[in-house]
Amino acid sequence: MPRHPRAAASVTAMSGSIFSALAGRLAEYPGEVYPLHVGDTWMDPPEGCRLEDLKASEHPGMNRYASPRGMLELLEASAAEVTRRSGLETEPREVLVAAGATGALGAVIGAIMDPGEEVLILAPHWPLIAGIVRSFHGVAVQVPFLGLADSPETAVEIVREAAGERTVALYLSTPNNPTGRLIPRSWLEALAEWARRRNLWLIADEVYEHYVYRGEHAYLRPMAPERTFACHSFSKAYGMAGNRCGYVVGPEALMDQLRKVSTHTFYSTPTASQIVAAEALRSAQPWVERAAASYRRAGEAAAQRLGVTPPDGSTFLFVDVAHALDDQGLLGFLERAAERGLFLAPGPSFGPYPTHVRLCFTSAPPEVVARGVEVLAQLMGR
Amino acid sequence: MPRHPRAAASVTAMSGSIFSALAGRLAEYPGEVYPLHVGDTWMDPPEGCRLEDLKASEHPGMNRYASPRGMLELLEASAAEVTRRSGLETEPREVLVAAGATGALGAVIGAIMDPGEEVLILAPHWPLIAGIVRSFHGVAVQVPFLGLADSPETAVEIVREAAGERTVALYLSTPNNPTGRLIPRSWLEALAEWARRRNLWLIADEVYEHYVYRGEHAYLRPMAPERTFACHSFSKAYGMAGNRCGYVVGPEALMDQLRKVSTHTFYSTPTASQIVAAEALRSAQPWVERAAASYRRAGEAAAQRLGVTPPDGSTFLFVDVAHALDDQGLLGFLERAAERGLFLAPGPSFGPYPTHVRLCFTSAPPEVVARGVEVLAQLMGR
Repeated sequence: MPRHPRAAASVTAMSGSIFSALAGRLAEYPGEVYPLHVGDTWMDPPEGCRLEDLKASEHPGMNRYASPRGMLELLEASAAEVTRRSGLETEPREVLVAAGATGALGAVIGAIMDPGEEVLILAPHWPLIAGIVRSFHGVAVQVPFLGLADSPETAVEIVREAAGERTVALYLSTPNNPTGRLIPRSWLEALAEWARRRNLWLIADEVYEHYVYRGEHAYLRPMAPERTFACHSFSKAYGMAGNRCGYVVGPEALMDQLRKVSTHTFYSTPTASQIVAAEALRSAQPWVERAAASYRRAGEAAAQRLGVTPPDGSTFLFVDVAHALDDQGLLGFLERAAERGLFLAPGPSFGPYPTHVRLCFTSAPPEVVARGVEVLAQLMGR
Repeated sequence: MPRHPRAAASVTAMSGSIFSALAGRLAEYPGEVYPLHVGDTWMDPPEGCRLEDLKASEHPGMNRYASPRGMLELLEASAAEVTRRSGLETEPREVLVAAGATGALGAVIGAIMDPGEEVLILAPHWPLIAGIVRSFHGVAVQVPFLGLADSPETAVEIVREAAGERTVALYLSTPNNPTGRLIPRSWLEALAEWARRRNLWLIADEVYEHYVYRGEHAYLRPMAPERTFACHSFSKAYGMAGNRCGYVVGPEALMDQLRKVSTHTFYSTPTASQIVAAEALRSAQPWVERAAASYRRAGEAAAQRLGVTPPDGSTFLFVDVAHALDDQGLLGFLERAAERGLFLAPGPSFGPYPTHVRLCFTSAPPEVVARGVEVLAQLMGR
């Protein structure tokens, strides 16, 4: 019983910051820093979509609470965007605006999972999803998938072996953070069909949907709209991570349950952030195209220098550095990188990957990323 | 087992929006509206502390993620503010910045409570706290307190009778939402001493600390700093509810656990919101004094017209309308009010108060509030 001075068991058991061991060094590093550990962009948000562009005189309610479900204008614009991009006719009442895709995923997990139940998480995975499941007292089952599945049949085989009596949902991210891979349409269709047979929820983290460099991003929700929650991000789409605004689309009957959870974890999404998000949906497509071209060049250049496969999408490369580790292991490698100003995210944050690192090739301007990648290539002996 | 199409049991059991029955009417009302159901302010934030005052050129990181714990500048300024106001020397490492006091309280509840454990909630209480406990799968025990306790001894007697084997924490709000009362220092001291003997956590919701009109607000945390989490709000202090920024101060050893929960429910607090919050701590004391004087006049005028005791603090009156109810009960009363443009929050949102309504006397300009109060007075036959 976690009374004073103890904390909740599931929270205590969660590992701390995924980067805490090296955070101090970043602040103190005297030379040029290559902060490739963060999933963010160096670009400023689109013109007209920055908080500094807002005038309270034009948006009289911008300092006050917004509706916990989201501002009507943004709900409508988001539904229209999802309809346009995914091809599935989507209504505002199927949308919940949230404090970033993180808040959206928290609302989903909180709404569909009772304590002790399990969520299957296809790995490598976005680092926070396991902690979200644990924060709501569930069991995060990491399922190594990308790099192992090679067909719709093996995709289903992998999840079938991982599922148990207490499994309630399957989470996946495509375009994938951290690998930069896309999950093929035929695999998604097979997973959706399997989830339907098993009566499971599906959670599709599609926050990098705008950043696809080869192949085609397939939307999961149209394959099983009755059971799929799809999470989207203005942070990732339009370079406004600091605004904390994203949204989730899902079965109408469940959205009230999600809204209850979001209301009780952050109440409403920042009002001004919603106003600029709606503006971005209206006017920022040219910015996205410029960003995608720049991101693609940066990703391809990084992959080429490191001798790895170029990314299909997202803003990441996930690199196995096993051959470059000494008896200090991965932490020693990360420290050697940090000594040269290069900061990377450790593989274990993404699942059972003790010899991998993740780098974000958009978190600094391309020339800075290139110099950071050069440091990594040298550390890898390439 | 809440798999498709079912939602989590504890979330399903939560009542929906505290205002959903009347929300449609508010949007459609053709005449002047008196939106006294919302806890917000009609005043614009202090000059220099508005999002529109920010320039990205002066705050280069304002569009990017902030640290999940909060920006160093705001952690330092918040710690200094708490030191100054409460008299307890407080360090930045005892502070977590969060998405409003709602996010702060979510982080506290998530960190200290395992599923099925109980939090005692002194009632009448802030509506969302019970749902926060339920969102994290705990049991919210509403304990009627204000209006019943009349001494330190009876205060302790009330909580002692409500506490059980699974109780882990006691939550209270002072200045109180919804009653406008202050919990006296001697009662708080007795409750702190009782919590120490019982080894419980204490949660003090003090978001109206700046708005005290008679008597003195006593801070709980200095009485039991080893076990108390105190929640503070920039929304309430400086009229910036739409920014979603608040903070919680507590025992240093627990703040990492709180940070884990906040990281996994909204990741970080909006960056620009933190910048203006820090500016408000620096420069907005004159605004607070003007707001407090205006709020006090509005609250006293409302109380006088309604024939109830004027508020000691906060921005609310909690009024028993039992004598004015017909066989349609409270909902009928709220509907009669809505038919005249007056929107009030229903008593049951605040605990077992089937014949009360809460009004916020700061959610519209004073002259608008006065006209809304006039409608209420007439409905009450006063």
